[in-house]
Amino acid sequence: MTTRSVPYKTYLSEDELPTHYYNVRADMKTDHAPILHPGTLQPVGVADMEPIFCTELAKQELNDSDRLIEIPERVRDFYRMYRPSPLIRAYYLEKALATPARIYYKYEGGNTSGSHKLNSAIAQAYYASEQGLAGLTTETGAGQWGTAMSMACSYFNLELLVYMVKISYEQKPYRKTVMQTYGAEVIPSPSDSTEVGRKMRAEFPDSNGSLGTAISEAVEVAVSSSDRRYVLGSVLNQVLIHQSVIGLEAKAALEKLDEYPDTVIGCAGGGSNLGGLMAPFMEDRLAGRTAPYFIAVEPASCPSLTRGRFAYDFCDTGQVTPLAKMYTLGHAFIPSANHAGGLRYHGMSPILSQLYHDGFLDEARAVEQSAVFAAAELFARTEGTLPAPESAHAIRAAIDEALKCKDSGEEKVILFGLTGNGYFDLLAYQQYNDGTMTDFIPTDEDLDRGFATIPSLPGIQ
Amino acid sequence: MTTRSVPYKTYLSEDELPTHYYNVRADMKTDHAPILHPGTLQPVGVADMEPIFCTELAKQELNDSDRLIEIPERVRDFYRMYRPSPLIRAYYLEKALATPARIYYKYEGGNTSGSHKLNSAIAQAYYASEQGLAGLTTETGAGQWGTAMSMACSYFNLELLVYMVKISYEQKPYRKTVMQTYGAEVIPSPSDSTEVGRKMRAEFPDSNGSLGTAISEAVEVAVSSSDRRYVLGSVLNQVLIHQSVIGLEAKAALEKLDEYPDTVIGCAGGGSNLGGLMAPFMEDRLAGRTAPYFIAVEPASCPSLTRGRFAYDFCDTGQVTPLAKMYTLGHAFIPSANHAGGLRYHGMSPILSQLYHDGFLDEARAVEQSAVFAAAELFARTEGTLPAPESAHAIRAAIDEALKCKDSGEEKVILFGLTGNGYFDLLAYQQYNDGTMTDFIPTDEDLDRGFATIPSLPGIQ
Repeated sequence: MTTRSVPYKTYLSEDELPTHYYNVRADMKTDHAPILHPGTLQPVGVADMEPIFCTELAKQELNDSDRLIEIPERVRDFYRMYRPSPLIRAYYLEKALATPARIYYKYEGGNTSGSHKLNSAIAQAYYASEQGLAGLTTETGAGQWGTAMSMACSYFNLELLVYMVKISYEQKPYRKTVMQTYGAEVIPSPSDSTEVGRKMRAEFPDSNGSLGTAISEAVEVAVSSSDRRYVLGSVLNQVLIHQSVIGLEAKAALEKLDEYPDTVIGCAGGGSNLGGLMAPFMEDRLAGRTAPYFIAVEPASCPSLTRGRFAYDFCDTGQVTPLAKMYTLGHAFIPSANHAGGLRYHGMSPILSQLYHDGFLDEARAVEQSAVFAAAELFARTEGTLPAPESAHAIRAAIDEALKCKDSGEEKVILFGLTGNGYFDLLAYQQYNDGTMTDFIPTDEDLDRGFATIPSLPGIQ
Repeated sequence: MTTRSVPYKTYLSEDELPTHYYNVRADMKTDHAPILHPGTLQPVGVADMEPIFCTELAKQELNDSDRLIEIPERVRDFYRMYRPSPLIRAYYLEKALATPARIYYKYEGGNTSGSHKLNSAIAQAYYASEQGLAGLTTETGAGQWGTAMSMACSYFNLELLVYMVKISYEQKPYRKTVMQTYGAEVIPSPSDSTEVGRKMRAEFPDSNGSLGTAISEAVEVAVSSSDRRYVLGSVLNQVLIHQSVIGLEAKAALEKLDEYPDTVIGCAGGGSNLGGLMAPFMEDRLAGRTAPYFIAVEPASCPSLTRGRFAYDFCDTGQVTPLAKMYTLGHAFIPSANHAGGLRYHGMSPILSQLYHDGFLDEARAVEQSAVFAAAELFARTEGTLPAPESAHAIRAAIDEALKCKDSGEEKVILFGLTGNGYFDLLAYQQYNDGTMTDFIPTDEDLDRGFATIPSLPGIQ
């Protein structure tokens, strides 16, 4: 253990922070399926999006030509507070597995928001600030994204209104506390502050809320105000652009160690983490160079890539957003309540969906949550860090790949994304410890009920 | 902001990890007041301590001659997972304060235990493992120490029994979950598993428990078994030895930046953090070289240094431990329940106490908690990291010192210890946000009740 060719942690210096985001869309040779206006079913332009998103972000959402987008200096300045994040060689996990594989992970949970979400939050807040907006609105379920946006808005002195799913608001009061400490206003959803909220409360007085309703409330407030806009933490093309900073740093750090991954693994809910981690390696693939084998890991209870359909669908349950072509389980699909943590989204980033459809993203793999928590526990005990359940999906796959190497004797280089820490998901760990955690795999009938909500759009592929 | 002489974060490389702990006691010219056996009132030797502590730790406890103690290779190997910890230049706080001071902080909250406690936990577990023990026992209040010991024992495959103060066990179920995830057994105290616990439950069936009772239970289990020992996370000389790694790293990182602190600030509950942070700078002071001005910051509600007495007292409420000469409020003193977070101990590390008594630790300062949380909020919003309430005591003093520099124009270099993150103390933040937090300063009568419990020892100074 004392003589190692590479250190446990590799940090880039602040000077080596990426200066530009990488926009993988510009290198995708596919015809990008346009985003469609929910009313006209015509491709949307920047002007259509401006009531919702600030202008620069609307442009990024539609940008399929610029490969590199400069990271604004003030965003880089904020990144210096918690980036570059460490690239860690999982020596202790390798030892426990007795694998010849060399396992690396990029750890994004070291900031107070606890996850990679902050990378995009600060960029979105910056563009809003530059546009002179007074504030932003968003929704949050488990609270990771709301916390990240609270920190970002605090930094740029923007007001932030967070619609928090009511059940989470009640069950996770401390997430609310962190957001409030950073100055955000947190409102349980459904609320009386919007039309959609009032309607929901009238119809379902006992509603626990849902992400779909919270999105609708946040969007309603944004579009009914001239100096507020809405922000979202995953799925969107703009978010994948910002998250490319993960992969760019990881690739640069590996180059310092004279390593290149054979396999890149990420958990996939909306796709922001895997999309960001794999972007610069996908650049190699798209250019026809040697590239890793890419694996997206999703929960068996919400299997959008492995069992979903590649089709146009609404991005939200409430059907107020544009339609995107993506792998989807149907916008009304809601994963079983016994599914822990995030990765509950019915669809998948259009970029990731297209790459998977075109065969560039090599494999999607669904894993059950008891196997995921077993991997999480082993990781915590060997590598020290308690992982977020979302991240543990990637750990599960990384362990399985490393065990294959043990059988085959291959010294593969495996890179995975450790997107966050597990501090705020301890209820699920408790269930795992208690033996009360159960797995859930939707039946074909369950899926069919979701698929039935995918809109039929005559003439549109 | 773009041209800076020093980076935001400075990391030593793994090769620069300290190889030896520094034992400041060996350089203290004072006659060390011996630890006294509670029965005989005679100075204790290693043999007296061996039923409680493992042998190597008992030796460290009494060691006042060896300046340097080698850090075992397996402990250094574990340190590589989360150390060297970053030395951070508080550019954003400086800017918010408009101070000419240069503020640095050593951040110890980046590991899963969330605090500096892990530095000593892993060392204590190592020596227990080397001695061939089966397991360890300890107590925990808020849970930081119990979590750190759980991680350490998991690493060395030692069983761990944690007596957790009952009210914390009930109010902080997630701390328990983390400990269990690392394989520890967590028992609410008072329990039926010990004599002292059963007695307490019989007398006070509704007891919420106390740290004093939990210590007594953990010690009872340890001494009644041949292959278990007891471990403690602060106050002890051995703990300050291990925590010197904080100061050694901080000093080395500052040397790289060609800086030397004018002021060193740490929060002080039992003294482990400040003792560790200041050790190598205190070495300079004790050798008559230029040295910083040292400030210990404690809560006004538990003012052992500022209002306590320098006297022999029991280290625990239950009077089962040896007596140490230290600043104490009396072993029966219990701070007001409205005091948030840690720093609730009635006494103070004997090393820190002696240094303060001898004038080497320059100043002790008591601060009220509403002022502490105001500092915590400002810090969180400017520097990103949500601090533990304990750490925020040091932030308060650092801000006050920096504001003095603003008035005087002095460009002082201020170093403080940020011992942990605030993830598990959000109830207190919530009270601060809600405006329900109150301050509490004990009256002279309150203190007199505590002082009355300091034992009168004829013939012993």
